[in-house]
Amino acid sequence: MICIFVTGGTFDKTYDEIQGKLSFGDTHLPEMLRLGRSHVDVNVRTLMMIDSLEMTDADREVVVRNCRQCAESCIVITHGTDTMVETAAALAHGVAGKTIVLTGAMIPYAFGSSDGLFNLGSALSLVQVLPPGVYIAMNGRHFEWNKVRKNRQTGVFESIF
Amino acid sequence: MICIFVTGGTFDKTYDEIQGKLSFGDTHLPEMLRLGRSHVDVNVRTLMMIDSLEMTDADREVVVRNCRQCAESCIVITHGTDTMVETAAALAHGVAGKTIVLTGAMIPYAFGSSDGLFNLGSALSLVQVLPPGVYIAMNGRHFEWNKVRKNRQTGVFESIF
Amino acid sequence: MICIFVTGGTFDKTYDEIQGKLSFGDTHLPEMLRLGRSHVDVNVRTLMMIDSLEMTDADREVVVRNCRQCAESCIVITHGTDTMVETAAALAHGVAGKTIVLTGAMIPYAFGSSDGLFNLGSALSLVQVLPPGVYIAMNGRHFEWNKVRKNRQTGVFESIF
Amino acid sequence: MICIFVTGGTFDKTYDEIQGKLSFGDTHLPEMLRLGRSHVDVNVRTLMMIDSLEMTDADREVVVRNCRQCAESCIVITHGTDTMVETAAALAHGVAGKTIVLTGAMIPYAFGSSDGLFNLGSALSLVQVLPPGVYIAMNGRHFEWNKVRKNRQTGVFESIF
Repeated sequence: MICIFVTGGTFDKTYDEIQGKLSFGDTHLPEMLRLGRSHVDVNVRTLMMIDSLEMTDADREVVVRNCRQCAESCIVITHGTDTMVETAAALAHGVAGKTIVLTGAMIPYAFGSSDGLFNLGSALSLVQVLPPGVYIAMNGRHFEWNKVRKNRQTGVFESIF
Repeated sequence: MICIFVTGGTFDKTYDEIQGKLSFGDTHLPEMLRLGRSHVDVNVRTLMMIDSLEMTDADREVVVRNCRQCAESCIVITHGTDTMVETAAALAHGVAGKTIVLTGAMIPYAFGSSDGLFNLGSALSLVQVLPPGVYIAMNGRHFEWNKVRKNRQTGVFESIF
Repeated sequence: MICIFVTGGTFDKTYDEIQGKLSFGDTHLPEMLRLGRSHVDVNVRTLMMIDSLEMTDADREVVVRNCRQCAESCIVITHGTDTMVETAAALAHGVAGKTIVLTGAMIPYAFGSSDGLFNLGSALSLVQVLPPGVYIAMNGRHFEWNKVRKNRQTGVFESIF
Repeated sequence: MICIFVTGGTFDKTYDEIQGKLSFGDTHLPEMLRLGRSHVDVNVRTLMMIDSLEMTDADREVVVRNCRQCAESCIVITHGTDTMVETAAALAHGVAGKTIVLTGAMIPYAFGSSDGLFNLGSALSLVQVLPPGVYIAMNGRHFEWNKVRKNRQTGVFESIF
């Protein structure tokens, strides 16, 4: 059994047609798993639904505590890309003995042209095979939590040495 | 560097609007990798573009030979689901020392509602971490080549013991 | 109130993922009207769900009778493109005093890249403004029933003089 | 020949994946006409690319002047929904003898679930059959410029008497 914690981010943004702007509603995770015809046993729980630029230390502590306390030892977290690396670091310091893979999207899933489904397939597969640790899965690649940064000019995650 | 061999299958079927039926054109792989914002170094080569129900032993031998002769030791193969297990067996007997992951789709990528992008993310990630061997990645899960079958009633790949 | 009669055609084809081929299920009309945020009062009725190449004279008579007998004087018909002109001719001879607009699609709506939504917007608007008669609405254009043919090489409807 | 003037609005909003917010790039009109397999002769010109809440009197005057001066007597205008009625009024006072249809979308076309293609089919058909005047085509319906308002609670255009 794999636990999927939803925290929001671009992944789950939708378009509010009355206000004419981006907003958050319910997560698209169940719909995406259905689309992917996933037959993995998962437990999807929404912890928060926020832009990762607005994620506070308290929010991050909620993520860490949930990862520590959940029964599952394989965890996928959907997260905004801007501060994904910070949350990965908090998890590395606060959770032991579990395989945690963070992923997200550059384009909302609700847009037809999203990378979200690709990234979800990636994260869900990696969490089943990687040894305990905290990882980021983006752009078809994966990185240990302390060997990656998001390049804000290109939007691409890249290795740091 | 990862090699992606394209063989056709539902994954790459399109709709021929003049004939009013399904057909094959060019592979959608490059477009899918772009959509997934993949930054993995890949070498995409189309070996054939056929329905896997029509794949002959000679076709299968082409797949095996290409996997054996290519420079890359990590290989993803897109393949129709109906005979994916047969091709996996041929590869297991004919190629040594490489990690080969076969994947496909239940719905053509050209349809908005395809599982193809999810499966591609899955296969491309698994091929980077699994030890040498031949695997099938479908439904968010992966199987060794000789421990899986496609359930034709449900369309789902499942473990055999 | 506008009556929409569904007869099948490419418009409503779906992909049967177990059989791996095109098939017909329920019509996509209600979903398409929702997507278009249509606020037109419509009455959607499925008369048949077939490829128009298989439409018989008896089928065509069913369409004519329903158009004659329905309470509405504005009627949209979704229809396969291959014999749309033949059905239009049958309607012109069999129904008087009503505005009937036939439309269809070159690509199934279930495919992301369909022209169906565009054509539906077109047909639904035209039926509200054209005088009684039988018309075909395709490719952003509309034609009187006896001044049009489908060019089978290009898939485009064009005027005949 | 029909002239299509693009002014922006939700219709043409895209998602800027580096900034993580909605923005405007090039218009999607040519792609939409291709998708709809439109064979109508059109002349697409982008006058501005703005949210209609930010449209000034000077912007509106640009729209009016272009409609007055263009050679075509059939004009479609894509426009944000919030002030579409104001621009329609300006056109009614400033342009004579032409058929002008304004349309827009509640969801950006770049989102898979947009009403834009439906509305474009609608507007492009109506402009070919309605007598000279200024109209708004939304929700499968059309209204004369002075008999309509946008209900901001529901996002739906409705008749006023």
